[in-house]
Amino acid sequence: MVTRHSYDQDLELLRQSLLNMGNAVADAIDGAVIALAQQDNELARKVMENDDDVDRMEIEIEDKCMVLIARQQPIARDLRVIGTGLKITTDLERMGDHAYDIAKIALSLSDQPLIKPLVDIPRMARMAQKMLKDSLEAYITLDIGLAEQVCINDDEVDNIYSQVFRELLTYMMEDPKTITQATQLIFVARYLERIADHATNIAEWTIYLVTGQRLRKN
Amino acid sequence: MVTRHSYDQDLELLRQSLLNMGNAVADAIDGAVIALAQQDNELARKVMENDDDVDRMEIEIEDKCMVLIARQQPIARDLRVIGTGLKITTDLERMGDHAYDIAKIALSLSDQPLIKPLVDIPRMARMAQKMLKDSLEAYITLDIGLAEQVCINDDEVDNIYSQVFRELLTYMMEDPKTITQATQLIFVARYLERIADHATNIAEWTIYLVTGQRLRKN
Repeated sequence: MVTRHSYDQDLELLRQSLLNMGNAVADAIDGAVIALAQQDNELARKVMENDDDVDRMEIEIEDKCMVLIARQQPIARDLRVIGTGLKITTDLERMGDHAYDIAKIALSLSDQPLIKPLVDIPRMARMAQKMLKDSLEAYITLDIGLAEQVCINDDEVDNIYSQVFRELLTYMMEDPKTITQATQLIFVARYLERIADHATNIAEWTIYLVTGQRLRKN
Repeated sequence: MVTRHSYDQDLELLRQSLLNMGNAVADAIDGAVIALAQQDNELARKVMENDDDVDRMEIEIEDKCMVLIARQQPIARDLRVIGTGLKITTDLERMGDHAYDIAKIALSLSDQPLIKPLVDIPRMARMAQKMLKDSLEAYITLDIGLAEQVCINDDEVDNIYSQVFRELLTYMMEDPKTITQATQLIFVARYLERIADHATNIAEWTIYLVTGQRLRKN
């Protein structure tokens, strides 16, 4: 027989694991975009290697959720904590994959001058990272207001993405030599836009956790 | 008290719901790529509208999984059926989103001649669709061999993606007027490659369901 006290401890551990995974993913996003902007191969490789840790964390959290469900037979909000934990870990893992993809592009572009100094892409990365941290903070503290703010911020990231996309198309049209690199930078912007979408998913899971109401996915 | 018999019926209903959702997603992939190749606006719009149904199915399946866990307190393989159900519905929903994205691109390109007849993109779509159907078939029938085949087929889709990507870059370099459209077609190819990745995830979930062993995610 497992006591309520030890169960609360298990849920606390689950939350802590999600936070650790989120921090690892935030570091990966940061590292990948710095590696890209500063053409730092070593950092790019480190980000790619660390993605294995993120994948391992996902599996550990999923296993933890399964064990909790089997042992505790939770209902109502306790069950939603675990159900959303399973969903959030998927979002985090996908964000980690996108950071990996950005680091891979950084590596492929490191032997050529960048067609332009990167300004908007690092800005998108900072915003996406903040959305990730805020969404997890909202999840842990059950802060609906903060979760709603994350959803609102997503529109701004979408706008910067559209702007970066158009700008890079213009570069390609004006100078076909930039095509290969500009295409890769469009992908980077797209991955950051997707990372922000996943942070928004986490915010929406938080709203579901607290209210029991599902929102439309983006 | 719920009997084992009614529980088996519930699990059967869950499997059926996943299959229905998978069929809706397969139709969306098919429709989106036909809309693109034949510049069929009406079909593109229909695919985009139908994505709401797919999103609704995801929520229904997740709710069903939560209710099953709460009511049945499953363990071992029964719990894995539900846990993998929760994961697979996320993969299906993402595939549906990618079909939506392709339909949106189809709509945006419908007022201009295509820069080339589309051959490899429809081929990728057929392969990804087959991988999706096979992965769900494997999940329902617990067919590990079929699941492994899906994982193998993913390499072929990756190869076609690389080839399409290089070909479209060449188009852009040879004729800058093709840049906007070719960039969109690169995204289409990328979405199809991602759809195949999600089918591979479903195959890997099937292997986990049967063996209890997790594979490395792609």
